[in-house]
Amino acid sequence: MSTKNQTSIIAEPGKQEVYIVREFDAPRDMVYKAHTDADMLAQWMGPADRVVKFEKFDPRPGGSYRYTVSSQDGKEIAGFHGSIHEATAPERVIQTFEFEGLPERGHVAMETALFEELAGNRTKVTIHSVFRSVADRDGMMQSGMETGVNDGYEKLDALLRQM
Amino acid sequence: MSTKNQTSIIAEPGKQEVYIVREFDAPRDMVYKAHTDADMLAQWMGPADRVVKFEKFDPRPGGSYRYTVSSQDGKEIAGFHGSIHEATAPERVIQTFEFEGLPERGHVAMETALFEELAGNRTKVTIHSVFRSVADRDGMMQSGMETGVNDGYEKLDALLRQM
Repeated sequence: MSTKNQTSIIAEPGKQEVYIVREFDAPRDMVYKAHTDADMLAQWMGPADRVVKFEKFDPRPGGSYRYTVSSQDGKEIAGFHGSIHEATAPERVIQTFEFEGLPERGHVAMETALFEELAGNRTKVTIHSVFRSVADRDGMMQSGMETGVNDGYEKLDALLRQM
Repeated sequence: MSTKNQTSIIAEPGKQEVYIVREFDAPRDMVYKAHTDADMLAQWMGPADRVVKFEKFDPRPGGSYRYTVSSQDGKEIAGFHGSIHEATAPERVIQTFEFEGLPERGHVAMETALFEELAGNRTKVTIHSVFRSVADRDGMMQSGMETGVNDGYEKLDALLRQM
């Protein structure tokens, strides 16, 4: 447990998909809950210097979610929303994802989150995102997404230790 | 109007996407409605020798749909469902899509339908589907999807003439 869990972000050149893979020192039920509960998501998602607010996260087929990211002094920076295709506890969530700050609407991705049990009450999370184009995928990669993911998972490590 | 409208199905080798492009001799509002109304969808979708029933099609963000395909004598053959990310009349619908007959769940695609106005009260429809893998895309291509699409659009031509 003293070794820090590393995040892999895999984006092959010319493909319209990204894989994010991360292990957590917590059981699968707990990691799944932290990914599907609005109050918990707000506590760990996004860059360290940002405040995330969830309007809703409704984890069922045909449910939807929306959240905003603000600076520490309360200025709203970005909004994100999507619809839930499937939320099967504790193993899989499939949802759409759209960043509301793009110049035009419709650049939507589909995200599949898989939660796998590992030995020692640990959990492997794989987030697989497919985009409408390679350009959409590359735009996401260049948006500072990596910082948000890494910071977020460190906050999630801390949250899971408290649970 | 005497020239039959052709359907293009474009699936580049090694990519995880498909484009279906088709023009219709009807105004955009009408073509959009035929794609987002459960009663109308049931009248034209699928192969000529099949009966399609829509349990629901709820064209709004966070809405969902499900339909079944049966033989003429009423035997249910397949079910399909998904969630709506966006339905912006009369220009765009983005939704997820899952065929319920696969050996395992989770092989979901995301479909974007674009409706463009053409001269002469005609409409161009582009359906862009992105899949979780090239294998998922190729599986869909080999499923007899082409017959369903072509038959469906011929029924839609007839329906639009009646409207």
